[in-house]
Amino acid sequence: MPGDSLSTTFAALADPTRRAILARLITGECSVTELAEPFDMSLPAVSKHLHVLERAGLISRGREAQWRPCRLEAGPIKQVADWTERYREIWEGRLNRLDAYLKTLHPKEKHHARKSRRK
Amino acid sequence: MPGDSLSTTFAALADPTRRAILARLITGECSVTELAEPFDMSLPAVSKHLHVLERAGLISRGREAQWRPCRLEAGPIKQVADWTERYREIWEGRLNRLDAYLKTLHPKEKHHARKSRRK
Repeated sequence: MPGDSLSTTFAALADPTRRAILARLITGECSVTELAEPFDMSLPAVSKHLHVLERAGLISRGREAQWRPCRLEAGPIKQVADWTERYREIWEGRLNRLDAYLKTLHPKEKHHARKSRRK
Repeated sequence: MPGDSLSTTFAALADPTRRAILARLITGECSVTELAEPFDMSLPAVSKHLHVLERAGLISRGREAQWRPCRLEAGPIKQVADWTERYREIWEGRLNRLDAYLKTLHPKEKHHARKSRRK
């Protein structure tokens, strides 16, 4: 059931350390030791996070006995992006309504509002 | 910390019933009773899910005493979509590499592979 894999992905992403691990892997494969360094975490703690990410299909591990590099698998993130698409019309619609509202303000306020939004 | 609100959003989305509630709200505001109907769930069970969605800012509730309609708030979903963007290059890169690989196959296999991908 695709709903379940999406739930597993969302649950895996609901942690800032796991998202930071994924961000680190954008630049390429890493060993567990390399991944642990910036987080000041024990290897078992990092391994636990990697296990959650691997179960969700967000990373894969090399099969070399000594060095099992972690590699980012972006497929589940694409599924998340696809899931958000049906809501795009709603958030863009609200922004358009905000624009329409700003156009109803008189010139001085409008000028101010436009300036604020540029910051 | 924006990381925390993103974690709260991902945790709220890690449940198929909560995602189904959000999908239902795309078509407009609903009462809790209307939301409960298709799920064959008790009102307290639905209320619990709504509480999680509300805490994550994914829905808001009307203030009328008798009828507190639920309304979709797509802002946090836009944040999720924005978060996925930095990974787009990776999943598109992999698809491009798959395309490049398919082009190395000889014409008959290539034709077959293209046909399969169209299904």
